[in-house]
Amino acid sequence: MAEPFPAKESLLYLFYRPTEPITFPKGDKQVIFNVPTEYLSARHSKLAEELENRFGGESRVTIPIKLIELKDSLSIPMQLSQDDQFSPHVPYHRELASHLIQVFLNMESLDDLLSMAVCAYERCNPYLFNYAYSVALLHRPDTKDVRIPQLNETFPAKFFSARDIGRARAESFLTSSSREPIIIPMDYTATDQDIEHRVAYFREDIGVNLHHWHWHLVYPISGTREVVDKDRRGELFFYMHQQIIARYNFERFSNRLSRVKRMQNFREPIPEAYFPKLDDQVASRKYASRQANSYLKDLDRERERIKFDIRDLERWENRIFDVIHTGNYIDENNKRQRLTEEDGINILGNMVEASMLTVNRQLYGDMHNLLHTAISLCHDPDHRYLETFQVLADPSTAMRDPAFYPLHAYIDDIFQEHKATLPPYTVAKLAYEGVTVTSMEVRSADGNVNQFSTYWKQDDVNLSKGLDFMPGNEELFARITHLQHADFTYIIKASNKGKDCKGTVRIFLAPTIDERGVPLQFREQKNLFIELDKFTVDLKPGDTEIHRQSTESSITIPFEQTFRRLPRNSEQNAEFNFCGCGWPQHMLIPKGWPEGMPCQLFVMISNYKDDKVDQKLDEKTCSDASSFCGLRDKKYPDRRPMGYPFDRSPRAGVVTLQDFMNGLPNMWVIDVTINFNNRIEEVET
Amino acid sequence: MAEPFPAKESLLYLFYRPTEPITFPKGDKQVIFNVPTEYLSARHSKLAEELENRFGGESRVTIPIKLIELKDSLSIPMQLSQDDQFSPHVPYHRELASHLIQVFLNMESLDDLLSMAVCAYERCNPYLFNYAYSVALLHRPDTKDVRIPQLNETFPAKFFSARDIGRARAESFLTSSSREPIIIPMDYTATDQDIEHRVAYFREDIGVNLHHWHWHLVYPISGTREVVDKDRRGELFFYMHQQIIARYNFERFSNRLSRVKRMQNFREPIPEAYFPKLDDQVASRKYASRQANSYLKDLDRERERIKFDIRDLERWENRIFDVIHTGNYIDENNKRQRLTEEDGINILGNMVEASMLTVNRQLYGDMHNLLHTAISLCHDPDHRYLETFQVLADPSTAMRDPAFYPLHAYIDDIFQEHKATLPPYTVAKLAYEGVTVTSMEVRSADGNVNQFSTYWKQDDVNLSKGLDFMPGNEELFARITHLQHADFTYIIKASNKGKDCKGTVRIFLAPTIDERGVPLQFREQKNLFIELDKFTVDLKPGDTEIHRQSTESSITIPFEQTFRRLPRNSEQNAEFNFCGCGWPQHMLIPKGWPEGMPCQLFVMISNYKDDKVDQKLDEKTCSDASSFCGLRDKKYPDRRPMGYPFDRSPRAGVVTLQDFMNGLPNMWVIDVTINFNNRIEEVET
Repeated sequence: MAEPFPAKESLLYLFYRPTEPITFPKGDKQVIFNVPTEYLSARHSKLAEELENRFGGESRVTIPIKLIELKDSLSIPMQLSQDDQFSPHVPYHRELASHLIQVFLNMESLDDLLSMAVCAYERCNPYLFNYAYSVALLHRPDTKDVRIPQLNETFPAKFFSARDIGRARAESFLTSSSREPIIIPMDYTATDQDIEHRVAYFREDIGVNLHHWHWHLVYPISGTREVVDKDRRGELFFYMHQQIIARYNFERFSNRLSRVKRMQNFREPIPEAYFPKLDDQVASRKYASRQANSYLKDLDRERERIKFDIRDLERWENRIFDVIHTGNYIDENNKRQRLTEEDGINILGNMVEASMLTVNRQLYGDMHNLLHTAISLCHDPDHRYLETFQVLADPSTAMRDPAFYPLHAYIDDIFQEHKATLPPYTVAKLAYEGVTVTSMEVRSADGNVNQFSTYWKQDDVNLSKGLDFMPGNEELFARITHLQHADFTYIIKASNKGKDCKGTVRIFLAPTIDERGVPLQFREQKNLFIELDKFTVDLKPGDTEIHRQSTESSITIPFEQTFRRLPRNSEQNAEFNFCGCGWPQHMLIPKGWPEGMPCQLFVMISNYKDDKVDQKLDEKTCSDASSFCGLRDKKYPDRRPMGYPFDRSPRAGVVTLQDFMNGLPNMWVIDVTINFNNRIEEVET
Repeated sequence: MAEPFPAKESLLYLFYRPTEPITFPKGDKQVIFNVPTEYLSARHSKLAEELENRFGGESRVTIPIKLIELKDSLSIPMQLSQDDQFSPHVPYHRELASHLIQVFLNMESLDDLLSMAVCAYERCNPYLFNYAYSVALLHRPDTKDVRIPQLNETFPAKFFSARDIGRARAESFLTSSSREPIIIPMDYTATDQDIEHRVAYFREDIGVNLHHWHWHLVYPISGTREVVDKDRRGELFFYMHQQIIARYNFERFSNRLSRVKRMQNFREPIPEAYFPKLDDQVASRKYASRQANSYLKDLDRERERIKFDIRDLERWENRIFDVIHTGNYIDENNKRQRLTEEDGINILGNMVEASMLTVNRQLYGDMHNLLHTAISLCHDPDHRYLETFQVLADPSTAMRDPAFYPLHAYIDDIFQEHKATLPPYTVAKLAYEGVTVTSMEVRSADGNVNQFSTYWKQDDVNLSKGLDFMPGNEELFARITHLQHADFTYIIKASNKGKDCKGTVRIFLAPTIDERGVPLQFREQKNLFIELDKFTVDLKPGDTEIHRQSTESSITIPFEQTFRRLPRNSEQNAEFNFCGCGWPQHMLIPKGWPEGMPCQLFVMISNYKDDKVDQKLDEKTCSDASSFCGLRDKKYPDRRPMGYPFDRSPRAGVVTLQDFMNGLPNMWVIDVTINFNNRIEEVET
């Protein structure tokens, strides 16, 4: 037997093959947890013995597990049965998860944590375990550098169709030399006859869904206060989802579709159908489908301890609009409080979501979470058919559903209603005295200038960590086809008439014309601007030429965090997934049109003095994708309102983007196109 | 290596693990087909080699496969891809299946058949293969005694929920000594909050669904004429399904539900929802669910080459009612033909189903089959969502769906409309001069008299033949809970005033009161009478006492054909499934009420001279369940109209069953009760 691992590495093996008994060997090293029999059920003790005989005494790594006193640490999370479906959107499930997170955070040493985690793995619902354990590892000071495997590797059934998982199962019977990657078809949930399917490549993108999952790990709805109460959490809930809607609309324009129509009347049928073709591997049952024109229903499900009426949603909406239009809210002590210009959006974000930071749950309810829940259970509102959720209830799958977008367009509309009550940015609030942008250009790796090139690309992801109860632990890959763009560089020229100073470069992209082909007015275009990048520059007196790579974007995580780009079995695989949260790099640029979709690329340099947040950053701070995900354990690194300068109604007289830029030489806009080439770049083999 | 098997036994191994490559070892004997490389794809040739290495050279039985010239025998059935869903209700799929059946029937020797079957196993859709291969084995003279494994063993996913299959998958990782039976819960598709769920134990019964599957194997809708054109096929389609509806209504009364409401208006929503929780193991995808209040839609699906409108169904219905009310139909030569009293129901059965024996498909369409198809695809009528069928499209799963019964009640209503046009049976047609029934009594094995005892019982079925891509071929059992009754004996006393003669004893059971608690009138009760038994007796002059066991019923197959009653691994297992078709013995008696459901047990002795069919029966003739399934290769063994004496409107003046029996001493009726005891008889272990 080889040497035991350091505790941190050991912790990771609990992500492997999440539904197998703890006593089964894990990973290609066939790691065995040496679990005290006190932790095992009679059945699993017997299994442990049998496995010893069945799989033989190959040289394996054994991880000894310390025996600790459990008390009844796990009795609450164990209320959810092991083969049930878990969703952090369901209040009852959140309660169980919060408890388990707390248990993990409380463990004094890594050895104790490992021991408790082994017990929880053995006894709790596997997906609940994964969620709570991930949140805990992300938030414990001693495990922050642990690299959590991506969810698509450990729960592939949440990302790949049951059919493809079935094919993987067949393939796993072969030795690794004979295995071939499972080729995932691009269209498997619908055809383009369903008009919504034209943007399925966006909704069903692995990286997009991983981002959403990871965001909710970093920003859980509830848990301990230290975990939930992050800087400007509610505002980021607004902004990140606003950007998702802007990006979705951009993709819709790319596919000649109108902007998504927000949900508005809970009594009307939901036109969007969704047949996810996914299994829940924990519950061994499919994610429920939703037929076209389904109706929301009052929910009353004992199973999830959930009971509310559509009338409740309507009541909460009314109250939230009262808050917005009066500029006041009622706190839990029944006191009126101002919704201020600075903090209002943050309060509203937490109220609408609602996170545990909401100012008054009694009064303002649980709007966004329960809307997810209501849609996702509309096929079985009282549990008479013993059905579980649609994908919309689960943060790792919700973005696949076309109904996610009408729902979030509705939520975003609430926030926009608030933003419309705020004073517009004056020229002074937008200006940077002495700093002028004199030009901007984008150079694409394929030689084009001011033209983004998009196309399809194949890449592989490893399934083997998640193929429970399949023989062999060797790697097995799924080959997916995703949107990709040629890498590019921004070249921005600026001049500074003053002294040495710093500026924040903010780069946004928006379509130029709307779904009718008519030029967009500022009032609409501002909501369509997608953030591409934001970074700090030093501005010496005189001219500065700024070069910035697309791969450095402040909203994305590197390509390698989603796909295996490197040769198989390379050591570098181990470097994956350090940060986790972030928009996937390959989805930075929307698809565009074959003939070139006309867009406007906007840049602004703002005064760093007004942007700056005083805090110390060390090298270890995970800073990828900070625009969408913030900085771990730090304040949000930009003091401006999120979405600045496009988060407010324009000042009087502004009709077009040009009007908006008038008298503001620190801004620049160029016409660009996004040119889509309908080809597939294959994996080099 | 052991001795090769005789060809007949070899044929059976093609039923095992239907989606695994042909080169994988099969069954607990680890049988290997030695397949000519010409038959294998490049990939599978490679696999064959690898397997030799991977699974080692244990002593195995090898079955050599002869190389025959394939020509393009399989090119048509191969049009259906291997991971598609197959349904004999879909005309296009039927076409492919008919072709494959023909190919198998044409093979000259058993060796040639085996060789062709191996190729078809390797290249065709596994479920299409199973269907066509089963039909062929049932109909080839040289394979009639081959015992086809029950479908629940080879395709367990059609009978057990995805969750239970998942649990079986986990269990299959253990050696057989550690394996425990998978306990199948009684309620897994819904709760009693769904009122239709109260009769789910009937709809989801394994034996009931096996019967329906097997019936459609014996009576395929199309194929070669020799296979389809069986004696009184259309009439049996009517009668077997009429009895299913009568039995379903009996179970509904047992559960305080009203009779099933027939489908009547194709434009109204279908109130019955069904969430089957089943996977299709071939397509590696779930059977589609149907939400409550779904609408039928015009179908236009390229995938199944199916296109028809609801208007077509309505048009066919109109024409069929024209046939009934005019008593004439138009044949394919555009000639008017009489729908006679003798043959009308048979013609109508084939017309309505419609089987390939329909008199004019152009005019009368494909009513029953396409109604199955229309409902089962109403969630995705134009295939935009890439969805496949609901369970209603597949004969092995259709009876699970509550919509099966409104559909078949509608079909039955068409037949009843025809029956109502026929002259009522006169007393002469019902009498048996000189024969009198003087008493009847039922003695139950539990000591009760004139009281049927029902309860729940657990039994095991073997899953291991169908757990594809799972390690080990050892047995693995599912333990299900089903309705059961105590065995009983009929004791009938009759007297004969004449000479030696024969009579046909016909025993029927019906509820006494309707859903309101009001005594049933004959006109309604006649449709609720379920056949319990029918057999021939010798009537010597004077008194005869007839003893007849419930297990001898003419509608059932023995208990052992559904469940494993014998000790595991017993040789007698091999005797299973000789006949296959037939109502499951354990479902002979409806559930009844805890306080005793009042019923009428009716017996009639008819004159054998008028019943008798001249034909030779040998001992090998499979005669189980002949009332529902006919006799293999023989004429239906009762010359009377099926359902006699309850298949016609009563003669003038008859209001009650007593009226009906007036002046007919060859009939007898007694009051009985069905007493349900809500206990579970467990498996002895």
